[in-house]
Amino acid sequence: MKNTAVLLITCPDRKGIVAAVAEFLYKFDANILHADQHQDAQGKLFLMRVEWDLTGFALDLAEFSRRFSPLADRFEMRWRLEDSRHPLRVALFVSKYDHCLMDLLYRHKTGELPCDIPLIVANHPDAQKWSDFYGVPLHLIPVPAGAKDEAEKQQLDLLAAEKIDLVVMARYMQVLSKNFVSKYPHRVINVHHSFLPAFVGAKPYHRAFERGVKLIGATSHYATEDLDEGPIIEQDVVRISHRDGLEDLLEKGRDLEKMVLSRAVRWHIDHRILVYDRKTVIFD
Amino acid sequence: MKNTAVLLITCPDRKGIVAAVAEFLYKFDANILHADQHQDAQGKLFLMRVEWDLTGFALDLAEFSRRFSPLADRFEMRWRLEDSRHPLRVALFVSKYDHCLMDLLYRHKTGELPCDIPLIVANHPDAQKWSDFYGVPLHLIPVPAGAKDEAEKQQLDLLAAEKIDLVVMARYMQVLSKNFVSKYPHRVINVHHSFLPAFVGAKPYHRAFERGVKLIGATSHYATEDLDEGPIIEQDVVRISHRDGLEDLLEKGRDLEKMVLSRAVRWHIDHRILVYDRKTVIFD
Amino acid sequence: MKNTAVLLITCPDRKGIVAAVAEFLYKFDANILHADQHQDAQGKLFLMRVEWDLTGFALDLAEFSRRFSPLADRFEMRWRLEDSRHPLRVALFVSKYDHCLMDLLYRHKTGELPCDIPLIVANHPDAQKWSDFYGVPLHLIPVPAGAKDEAEKQQLDLLAAEKIDLVVMARYMQVLSKNFVSKYPHRVINVHHSFLPAFVGAKPYHRAFERGVKLIGATSHYATEDLDEGPIIEQDVVRISHRDGLEDLLEKGRDLEKMVLSRAVRWHIDHRILVYDRKTVIFD
Amino acid sequence: MKNTAVLLITCPDRKGIVAAVAEFLYKFDANILHADQHQDAQGKLFLMRVEWDLTGFALDLAEFSRRFSPLADRFEMRWRLEDSRHPLRVALFVSKYDHCLMDLLYRHKTGELPCDIPLIVANHPDAQKWSDFYGVPLHLIPVPAGAKDEAEKQQLDLLAAEKIDLVVMARYMQVLSKNFVSKYPHRVINVHHSFLPAFVGAKPYHRAFERGVKLIGATSHYATEDLDEGPIIEQDVVRISHRDGLEDLLEKGRDLEKMVLSRAVRWHIDHRILVYDRKTVIFD
Repeated sequence: MKNTAVLLITCPDRKGIVAAVAEFLYKFDANILHADQHQDAQGKLFLMRVEWDLTGFALDLAEFSRRFSPLADRFEMRWRLEDSRHPLRVALFVSKYDHCLMDLLYRHKTGELPCDIPLIVANHPDAQKWSDFYGVPLHLIPVPAGAKDEAEKQQLDLLAAEKIDLVVMARYMQVLSKNFVSKYPHRVINVHHSFLPAFVGAKPYHRAFERGVKLIGATSHYATEDLDEGPIIEQDVVRISHRDGLEDLLEKGRDLEKMVLSRAVRWHIDHRILVYDRKTVIFD
Repeated sequence: MKNTAVLLITCPDRKGIVAAVAEFLYKFDANILHADQHQDAQGKLFLMRVEWDLTGFALDLAEFSRRFSPLADRFEMRWRLEDSRHPLRVALFVSKYDHCLMDLLYRHKTGELPCDIPLIVANHPDAQKWSDFYGVPLHLIPVPAGAKDEAEKQQLDLLAAEKIDLVVMARYMQVLSKNFVSKYPHRVINVHHSFLPAFVGAKPYHRAFERGVKLIGATSHYATEDLDEGPIIEQDVVRISHRDGLEDLLEKGRDLEKMVLSRAVRWHIDHRILVYDRKTVIFD
Repeated sequence: MKNTAVLLITCPDRKGIVAAVAEFLYKFDANILHADQHQDAQGKLFLMRVEWDLTGFALDLAEFSRRFSPLADRFEMRWRLEDSRHPLRVALFVSKYDHCLMDLLYRHKTGELPCDIPLIVANHPDAQKWSDFYGVPLHLIPVPAGAKDEAEKQQLDLLAAEKIDLVVMARYMQVLSKNFVSKYPHRVINVHHSFLPAFVGAKPYHRAFERGVKLIGATSHYATEDLDEGPIIEQDVVRISHRDGLEDLLEKGRDLEKMVLSRAVRWHIDHRILVYDRKTVIFD
Repeated sequence: MKNTAVLLITCPDRKGIVAAVAEFLYKFDANILHADQHQDAQGKLFLMRVEWDLTGFALDLAEFSRRFSPLADRFEMRWRLEDSRHPLRVALFVSKYDHCLMDLLYRHKTGELPCDIPLIVANHPDAQKWSDFYGVPLHLIPVPAGAKDEAEKQQLDLLAAEKIDLVVMARYMQVLSKNFVSKYPHRVINVHHSFLPAFVGAKPYHRAFERGVKLIGATSHYATEDLDEGPIIEQDVVRISHRDGLEDLLEKGRDLEKMVLSRAVRWHIDHRILVYDRKTVIFD
């Protein structure tokens, strides 16, 4: 397990920010492992991520906020500190299609996804075998037509009880309500099986097939109340031809979905994503 | 120059088509170089392309239609015969952006595009230097607001006089009228600077930038009266990141546009494209 | 399950082959689903694959050889007939790394790989959990130093007893002997974790890292007695940068390996691969 | 034209480097536009690039070295300062194949390559037309067998007289001597028409064709005395199939070569490349 801290900053672009932050960390003997920054020229925004080794860091993280606040105030920063010794707690939501679920659980097992996965939420019982195999409790919460409110209440209670930091919709075929999403801003990741903004909405592979496109895509993004309109995290495409039937598109698409969703989860739990406007910065 | 004939066939899918066509060609001693076919299961269509060496072919192509018609009628074929000894005559339309124009002219010069290019049509004088360099006459036909009809009449007269087979809109920034396009069905190729159907219409790079996509694309397609809705020939994408400003998108996009447009032109002049519904088959 | 037959042909390139084969199949009322061919200009070879629906096919496949032989002899064909109603029997060989194994078993379960997988052969016990999960018997055959002959004898006996058609080395970290490979010509598929012929041999990711390449690759190929020199079936690459450490290469490589190996297995069991010289034709 | 300075630093990895550099620049009121850094864990190296706006920068660049040296000495830095108001002077070397030459000259004209190109050096006269078209003087220096020394002397005299900063071998089909290369360390960029280290040496496309690979590649790298062994700057690949003859590989390869060479030149003249060991860091 890593023994690092990550500081993420968004503020108006001004001179001296890097110097001030670097000086602050150096004062407490931080061994900086990664630092990356981005200036958005349009919005005159400055965004920064710094990760340092906690070994030998001379400031108790419990004291960090008090000590860092004057600097943060001076530059009008929105900021947060992440402690990699406390891995994020992730809930996986799934329906019938299980390829993303099994892919994420496998990557978690191999150590590619350094997080805790305390639960799976499913509206179908099919994923039970993966729950058993990986020893991750599955909570079956059906969502009958007209009873989404009640189902979401159960889900939200579960998430709260388990102190969940991130919800991953691993081909969870339900639209989450505005109420649900607003409780986890930029903390619900969805995968849409098209190259957004092409084919927003239902049955994108069918529509891609009808339109005769030569590439199909998949997109992972933060879920917002406007379906498929949230900030895009990752996209990828694969070539198809006239020889590919709808079934081939579905198959090729599954591999895309696994890739773009797992990368998004990886970057989120590594605290490498900052959202501004409707865009994401993915720090190196 | 090649010395081959290409037969392109579309007909209802039935047994015996390949046997009949192959038998017909064999009877006249054809040396088949390429044969490719496609069945569209949905539409119950059969599509085929055969290319054979004319050396030693025992049937005069002038006689082909008369001899082939009974077979074609039996299978209810729509078909056409292309003679590679008569390269297609291609007109390049251009406005101010000249990267696709210069790319196509260079590929033509190196032999990658085996066609004749007897003229360039431009609504701006900027491309004159390429006309001079490559010795391809440029016809400057401005398109003032409200006078598109008159300009198109001049263009159509030119195309007719020069017996043009294919119009390539090499970033020609004008929308061709329904009247124009209907005179060259599936014989006008356009390049749209997005991954269609994402960002249909104007300023796609600007909108891609605003939306925060992680890949940008370009699409070559046959122009139809519905803008950007014609059958797609080729698409490609390139990765971008939050570091790429609008100017970077425009630069990266130029390389995409050159690639997808030149491939489309290449396939068209090799008679490798068949259109059905709104889709294309690209034969190998 | 499919109800089709596949005919694969290699012969000297001559006129009339397609006509003769198509006529032969039409005579027995075959409904051709796919036909693809390739001429190798250098070797003056003709290679062909035809797949037809067995529903309504008027020739008993048991009689096929007797009836087809005169035609085959006339054109000096090497040919084989595959009956898709008898799926290939595939053995998966694995060592400690299980990502390719779990990927192939999952694809098999979802129906992407229409074959039978009657056994897993492992030289380490780690894969037992996958054997249990998918209900595929695992045979643990350790390969102690100096005792490969004995181990291979056990393996070959197993393969014979189970009538195995195809051996897939799913990151099986042992070199198979010349004797073993010669018993399964073009029927052992291996995945090498580099873009061959770069980094032939051991530890390719380490060497790619040392060399500072900007892309890493993976290659699936038929195993021959010369390690990593067999006919290449599929290759793919992924971009890396100076930020990627060796561990990142290993991770990114795992996804590549899964993709190129599963595609190779898919194409093999669909009888879409013909080998000539050291090359493969992958029929559409 | 840009009005910025770029500072490039390599030094042993220690705490406080970023703070010291940022503080130094802030003291002179630098408006930092880009900052990127890399730690090489193996070599315990720290590498950094900072670019800032010279508008309002309170230190005369002529004074920079004197003022920065104490800090640089403290951290044992190798460093250099680049002034974007003085674009690099680039010489293009070419033989008969002119696709990279014409591509670079076009990109230069459009502003994609912010440098000066005062001369073309050619050992064949074919490129004269591009010299005339773009108004860049061409120096024809034939390299007869056995007379390379004399030719290189002429070339080196020219480069010195024109104060050339960077030599770009745009498919210049001669091997430069150890003597030549040593005079321009990491300042000669070559393009090799394969995915290095596959197919080092002559005729890579021919050998790729013989080997039956499924992807071909191209590589841009700094030329060193060991042919094709220099630090890799950029690589890319394109898919091929059994249908592609040698001529197709050459054609597809030309597009790859243009892409990887032009990117390398772009990154070099933007001072975004640092070399260490045999590797390159490409700063964002």
